[in-house]
Amino acid sequence: MKIAIMGTGMVGQELAGRLAVLGHDVTVGTRDIAATMARTEPNPVGIPPFSAWSPAHPDVALATFPDAAAGGEVIVNATVGSASLEVLRLAGGRHLAGKILIDVANVLDFSHGMPPTLFVKDTDSLAEQIQREFPDAKVVKTLNTMTASLMVNPRQLADGAHTTFISGDDPDAEDTVTALLTQLGHTDIIDLGGISTARGPEMLVKIWLELWDALGTYEFGIKIVR
Amino acid sequence: MKIAIMGTGMVGQELAGRLAVLGHDVTVGTRDIAATMARTEPNPVGIPPFSAWSPAHPDVALATFPDAAAGGEVIVNATVGSASLEVLRLAGGRHLAGKILIDVANVLDFSHGMPPTLFVKDTDSLAEQIQREFPDAKVVKTLNTMTASLMVNPRQLADGAHTTFISGDDPDAEDTVTALLTQLGHTDIIDLGGISTARGPEMLVKIWLELWDALGTYEFGIKIVR
Repeated sequence: MKIAIMGTGMVGQELAGRLAVLGHDVTVGTRDIAATMARTEPNPVGIPPFSAWSPAHPDVALATFPDAAAGGEVIVNATVGSASLEVLRLAGGRHLAGKILIDVANVLDFSHGMPPTLFVKDTDSLAEQIQREFPDAKVVKTLNTMTASLMVNPRQLADGAHTTFISGDDPDAEDTVTALLTQLGHTDIIDLGGISTARGPEMLVKIWLELWDALGTYEFGIKIVR
Repeated sequence: MKIAIMGTGMVGQELAGRLAVLGHDVTVGTRDIAATMARTEPNPVGIPPFSAWSPAHPDVALATFPDAAAGGEVIVNATVGSASLEVLRLAGGRHLAGKILIDVANVLDFSHGMPPTLFVKDTDSLAEQIQREFPDAKVVKTLNTMTASLMVNPRQLADGAHTTFISGDDPDAEDTVTALLTQLGHTDIIDLGGISTARGPEMLVKIWLELWDALGTYEFGIKIVR
């Protein structure tokens, strides 16, 4: 499957690398290719730059947001949540129309300092904002409730015995995303319902940050025991 | 231990009944004893009235909010979240001072119709509102992330293999509450930190409601797998 991943950060790198290994045709989208490849310093939280990651992953292409989106059958939004709408506008609505748009972003706003606040809460969600702005895309929210390494290798923790949520309005898109998640190793997938149910998983980021602090690790999963 | 439980609803009934069985001296607080005992109809969501529950639990006393709080060594806020501050004011700050105040309430606002909204989110919590208004009480947030029957009998689900969160500023109070939780059967207790960490568990109510809808049951637990 041709997959375009918007975002060159840790989540974009992890998803691109793993999906390519699984045999997908992966292109990562960025704002400015030259600027992306010119950055050689880790970002403020220590994530290696794409230019350091890229040589070890020659099977993953790099393109501008619109070029990547144009070539993708499935688009993944792996950008910082507060920049997602702007990035998807740059990618271009015509390149998203009719396609599955997997939104894995978190709704964190760092502009008021630390700890970050949530820029949408229980009365809206980023996934819904994206769906409203791009009504012809088939938005599916998933994976935002775990760290990037668990997104692509859930079985490294408790043999995968933790839960992955999906929300979306299009059942066929949800089926395709569920198949992709299963390929990545996700075994306990709960379909919460329509895209508005993305509010619950997006709000989980608050306790996720608290748990990171309390447990001293972000290598944890959330299992719905039933 | 002398435990005063504010609230005669399902949560108050479950906690009162179980804590009395465990040997505690339990009093349930209410606004108006005569009115409480005069109600013979289930509430709008089908919870039996206290007057129907009480005869089967003769070891649980009923008193006004201030009388119950005055006699309690530990106070439990088991009221509807939107009414909690008013109820605790009625109970009286002088009856809460120096005592452990266990807050199990959820921050749901039903005044705008269904689904309910959250009246505090990631920038404040009900537990902090209570702590600010009653600075001499030792507020501990816990148990709000599960249905009442699991609060008092967590082992009925997966032999208790799900997580209970606590937040509070007073380590001794947290130790006492942890001992009470252990007595109830809770085995996986995560101390998230100070009372401001109640924000995370309070925000879980959104996905809790979504899961109730998606799973068709509220008999589920949230396990932090690590």
